[in-house]
Amino acid sequence: MGAFKFRGAFNAMSLLSDADKARGIITYSSGNHAQAVALVGTLLGIRTTVVMPNDAPTTKRVATEEYGATVVEYDPQKVTRQVIAEALAAKHGYTIVPPYDHLDVIAGQGTAALELFAEVKTLNTLLVPCGGGGLLSGSAIASKTIDPSCRVVGIEPELADDATKSFHTKTLHTVKNPPTIADGTRTPSLGELTFPLVLKYVDDMKTVSETDIIEAVKFLFYRMKLVVEPSGALGVAALLSGRISPEGQVGVIISGGNVDADTMTLILNA
Amino acid sequence: MGAFKFRGAFNAMSLLSDADKARGIITYSSGNHAQAVALVGTLLGIRTTVVMPNDAPTTKRVATEEYGATVVEYDPQKVTRQVIAEALAAKHGYTIVPPYDHLDVIAGQGTAALELFAEVKTLNTLLVPCGGGGLLSGSAIASKTIDPSCRVVGIEPELADDATKSFHTKTLHTVKNPPTIADGTRTPSLGELTFPLVLKYVDDMKTVSETDIIEAVKFLFYRMKLVVEPSGALGVAALLSGRISPEGQVGVIISGGNVDADTMTLILNA
Repeated sequence: MGAFKFRGAFNAMSLLSDADKARGIITYSSGNHAQAVALVGTLLGIRTTVVMPNDAPTTKRVATEEYGATVVEYDPQKVTRQVIAEALAAKHGYTIVPPYDHLDVIAGQGTAALELFAEVKTLNTLLVPCGGGGLLSGSAIASKTIDPSCRVVGIEPELADDATKSFHTKTLHTVKNPPTIADGTRTPSLGELTFPLVLKYVDDMKTVSETDIIEAVKFLFYRMKLVVEPSGALGVAALLSGRISPEGQVGVIISGGNVDADTMTLILNA
Repeated sequence: MGAFKFRGAFNAMSLLSDADKARGIITYSSGNHAQAVALVGTLLGIRTTVVMPNDAPTTKRVATEEYGATVVEYDPQKVTRQVIAEALAAKHGYTIVPPYDHLDVIAGQGTAALELFAEVKTLNTLLVPCGGGGLLSGSAIASKTIDPSCRVVGIEPELADDATKSFHTKTLHTVKNPPTIADGTRTPSLGELTFPLVLKYVDDMKTVSETDIIEAVKFLFYRMKLVVEPSGALGVAALLSGRISPEGQVGVIISGGNVDADTMTLILNA
């Protein structure tokens, strides 16, 4: 479904017991994790329910339903998504598969770095986008296990710099509804599991500007002929803008590619 | 430079004698072949001149100059590009490297099919876009040499169906300035060399509509995360529209990816 979120959802859902699989799973997301869970449910024959705010874009709701999930709407002004998901899970016996704060999800996302190492053998630096920290902590664990000398750096937008602040101060910071174009990083903060993992396995955190992100998406489009959504282009943005100086062999995780016509039109004409 | 044209230009220019290389080469093109020749010239240290109409888009002129060529303008209302190129070639001793009607160019383009066979081993059908017929005849020669049973089909836009008509009637047809979105296929006809090669090595020719082409570019963008220009998406258009029914292992040559913001904006919002 065009993003690394498939890795975590597939790992977590395939590890469920047969009884849990039979009862079904629930998650809360209006982005790539929702589509990942829906697709994995269809592939593994697991019933999936996705809790989505009633103001989520119709295209995302439709895509999630087309992959096979039942979408349950809620009013974000009145209640949080976790409360709704937990209530439905308790009522129907669903297992909750959260977007990032879950060890099996984190392990699944880490296969992105694992595959990169399998292909290139050595890396001096690895750049990884950071939203909730699932991809970053999973990739950092994989990297440090294979090659402890590889420097792992998480990249996030300046406008959504909660993880960078949390990393440098060792205290959890939160940013509410950051207006970044990188919609996959609009998560308010690192999670209970991902925060300590990022502190332990990640070497540094850097931020990039909105202009850096737009230039990176354009570079990937015009020069690499790749469709990459803003959140997926954060590592390339850090390199192109000079926020990271390339030394030795630099790996960059680029994922995903789910960008709508309006956003790509805006970026190409920026 | 984002298109198969590099293959033909590199093959033709690298095979020149040292004396011819020292005098430089000339070509006529306002598209991918111009950029290919300019880049190969820079890589091989060969001086390159590109004859371009004075109404060519500024972006294409600038890209060609940035790759290292000298651009010479002409008035397409008064003179043809071949006449200008031949006059300059005679005056300066330049070798002409035409966009498709040249055996070394055709052989270079054929490496696209050669690489595909090297990777997948067997193919029952191979779909190849057709403009001037360089990529098509080169790929057909490569395919038939490796596996005579592989069916090679050329695809062109309905609005620029000169090669399809020429193939079926065995008489050269011409279409002037066809208004297709697939700008790489706006060549008036097959060439003196490519026409007999297409007749000899190609099994069939099919056309696709403008809507088929747009849907194919969108499919490649949204599902494959690939940036493909309309001319490069012709094979995918033939499959998705059902004009070609997939039987066995089908290979599709997809190239290139040079599409500007205006065209991609138009396609994504179509």
